[in-house]
Amino acid sequence: MADSIPSRTHCPHRILAIAGSLRRDSINRLLLHAAAALAPQDVQVEVYDGLGTIPMFDEDNEEAVAIAGPVHTLARKVAAADALLIATPEYNHSMPGVLKNAIDWLSRGSVGDVLVGKPVAVIGASTGRWGTRLAQAALRQVLFATESVVLNGPAVYLANGGAAFDAQGRLINSAARASLEQVLGMLRQVPMARLAGSQPEPVPLADA
Amino acid sequence: MADSIPSRTHCPHRILAIAGSLRRDSINRLLLHAAAALAPQDVQVEVYDGLGTIPMFDEDNEEAVAIAGPVHTLARKVAAADALLIATPEYNHSMPGVLKNAIDWLSRGSVGDVLVGKPVAVIGASTGRWGTRLAQAALRQVLFATESVVLNGPAVYLANGGAAFDAQGRLINSAARASLEQVLGMLRQVPMARLAGSQPEPVPLADA
Repeated sequence: MADSIPSRTHCPHRILAIAGSLRRDSINRLLLHAAAALAPQDVQVEVYDGLGTIPMFDEDNEEAVAIAGPVHTLARKVAAADALLIATPEYNHSMPGVLKNAIDWLSRGSVGDVLVGKPVAVIGASTGRWGTRLAQAALRQVLFATESVVLNGPAVYLANGGAAFDAQGRLINSAARASLEQVLGMLRQVPMARLAGSQPEPVPLADA
Repeated sequence: MADSIPSRTHCPHRILAIAGSLRRDSINRLLLHAAAALAPQDVQVEVYDGLGTIPMFDEDNEEAVAIAGPVHTLARKVAAADALLIATPEYNHSMPGVLKNAIDWLSRGSVGDVLVGKPVAVIGASTGRWGTRLAQAALRQVLFATESVVLNGPAVYLANGGAAFDAQGRLINSAARASLEQVLGMLRQVPMARLAGSQPEPVPLADA
């Protein structure tokens, strides 16, 4: 499918990368910066850094919050991206509430249903030995609910993540670098949302 | 176990009830108010209404936020309660980010590990036909991670919840009322945290 897209070198794939933690030195944020550094020329990775400004979802003030400010900005970034790359920490066997809250917003008609049909790759790193397996599983289920296109591909469950980065925050674990490169190769294959003019239609629900 | 606790009628079980949505007219909040109204004399249900004041969890400012303000207040309420009753809506096949964020806070040592060993009953209502089944399943998994004691008992998956309440917000669905009464009966059996003087020890982890 990617072969049929013209002028790829002049029109790079745009990937919006979101870390699920607010911590400044989050290893999941470092992982996304590593992805940005490893990206081939025709893949642009923007690491989003506004998650801490997204207010808590409240249906009572949804309409007012959705049309301006940080929620609107994030939704427009998601809409403009060809795909998302989400790196989630694991808090209590799931994704952080902070990340889920942002997804709750993005799933709403009030911000334009921007997750519907959006390709998403999920990765994650932990300092412990499980590498965010349960958080990623929970997130994939949520992205199924939002009718996003969860990409299959190399699993990135980076365990013992503290040792994977050097003092400057660069990813030095070669297996993790190779996996990230595979993920970037996968993201390079997604259809370009803005060239296609529209996102793929979701599969219609059976009237069960 | 409850039979061995003295002076029960003079010392009611204290249940802290938390609705997972911020919406003022949330049917999950209505469900908790119904539980409070149905509670027998020796069970006190306090419906917590501060969820909207809990800031997003950020490890970078965790220590400062944990020791005062709304996070500290909620943690003290949880610590003082004999059990929790959580009514969760379902957002995207899971609990709202807002609720998960509060649990992320409560799971931390900085607020006193107040969820460890805490009995919790999970219920939920939706206006649709699934009654928050996936949200409750996700929440139970999270509460397993926090080493809380998830109570077995009557399932409350209130579907088509809009029709279950009257114009004054009173629960008029008799099956739902009966189920809530069963849940309250179950909550009446939990050990009293403050009489026992301490919460049950969590099961030690095997050194796997």
